[in-house]
Amino acid sequence: MYLIRLCYDGTAYSGYQRQKNSRTVGQELLSAAEAVFGEVKRFAGCSRTDSGVHAYDYAVSFSAAKPLSPDTVVRAMNANLPEDISVYSCRIVPDDFHARYSVISKEYVYNIYTGEVRSPFYGKYSLFYPRDIDILLVDKGLKKFEGRHDFRSFMASGSKITDTVRTVFSSHVEKDGEMVRIYIEADGFLYNMVRIIIGTLLGLNENKISLDDIDKIIEKKDRKFAGRTVPAYGLFLNRVNYGQ
Amino acid sequence: MYLIRLCYDGTAYSGYQRQKNSRTVGQELLSAAEAVFGEVKRFAGCSRTDSGVHAYDYAVSFSAAKPLSPDTVVRAMNANLPEDISVYSCRIVPDDFHARYSVISKEYVYNIYTGEVRSPFYGKYSLFYPRDIDILLVDKGLKKFEGRHDFRSFMASGSKITDTVRTVFSSHVEKDGEMVRIYIEADGFLYNMVRIIIGTLLGLNENKISLDDIDKIIEKKDRKFAGRTVPAYGLFLNRVNYGQ
Repeated sequence: MYLIRLCYDGTAYSGYQRQKNSRTVGQELLSAAEAVFGEVKRFAGCSRTDSGVHAYDYAVSFSAAKPLSPDTVVRAMNANLPEDISVYSCRIVPDDFHARYSVISKEYVYNIYTGEVRSPFYGKYSLFYPRDIDILLVDKGLKKFEGRHDFRSFMASGSKITDTVRTVFSSHVEKDGEMVRIYIEADGFLYNMVRIIIGTLLGLNENKISLDDIDKIIEKKDRKFAGRTVPAYGLFLNRVNYGQ
Repeated sequence: MYLIRLCYDGTAYSGYQRQKNSRTVGQELLSAAEAVFGEVKRFAGCSRTDSGVHAYDYAVSFSAAKPLSPDTVVRAMNANLPEDISVYSCRIVPDDFHARYSVISKEYVYNIYTGEVRSPFYGKYSLFYPRDIDILLVDKGLKKFEGRHDFRSFMASGSKITDTVRTVFSSHVEKDGEMVRIYIEADGFLYNMVRIIIGTLLGLNENKISLDDIDKIIEKKDRKFAGRTVPAYGLFLNRVNYGQ
């Protein structure tokens, strides 16, 4: 079984998951793997990232009869991939490994650009938010999500998942010039969970809700009480943790 | 007279200078200014940047009969510009000001990405150079260009400029993770000058030439002795200095 790590700019893709009639990161990776190995089996991605979401660290696993060295796989995959997807490592893992089910935790980061005018360089990779962010307040709000909670209020309405309990292991806010980055690491994420959490934290920053309201929104278990869903293009899968 | 500062992603443009039959940054800015002011006169850009070159700081000056506050100009210009060009400031300057002739110095930065695999995020903004850079050596080479020199060896062949003496005021090399940035500030630049200097410094890094060879290449005053011309997409106009 091969485990491949990669990064991609999701701007041009309808997310990761393979679909008919649209270009997806998963389809590009499968096509490249088939070009390199002939046939591949048990091809699996670590996460179903949404349309437009990016990844600094994404993982896929698959098995193939053809034995190739990890270095060869990295080079050969990149030779068969477009410029907005780059494989940066490959290793051999046990046969029962699965890129999705073997995940211990994943970390997402959401980028918010607080400059006064739209940046031509960060526009596709961050939310344009031309106002001050109270970092200490937002960090206090963010910490409310840490631990084991039912995150039903932070799941896109229409999602059919029934087990909505997730554990947030860690979170932090980082300020780098005019860019603010919010990191959340959890054992799993519901559909649009990070984007609704960030929208709720921006509501806190705008004094539309208080810190105590966040506890109440979590307790409500109803999407309509949480904040807006921020755009996909500010969101990056930042790290996939397999504990090894 | 208005002085406008802006930044742009040059990927989609045939440089700054207005030309027939191709999209240029200058044409976009003039169209936006005409949309805002009706008629503008003495419209001038600070530099004729090449096709594909980017700018963190670019300046244009023009006069217009319509009196608008600087804040209004910034907002109105941005409302009339595409997303890859952003105006970030405007001020009123004396009538004899000229965005190009009033320049005291300009600084360019060239980005070199030294990661092992192509980055989906930095690809359009840096040279992909997957090998080590000896920062101390390259910095010593760079310092050879400081001061007043005839830079004829570092001008694209075919250029018709006859006065090829320029003064490099300052230069430095910066390493930021896998990105290496080389900064050069001068009173003016010949056609392709920065890109040929960087190509020559990479020749130094690759032991194709020695430090002493750089002095000799400058003395030769002949393009054929200098290094390769690196691609435009790694180059940014970083700062335009009007001494005020």
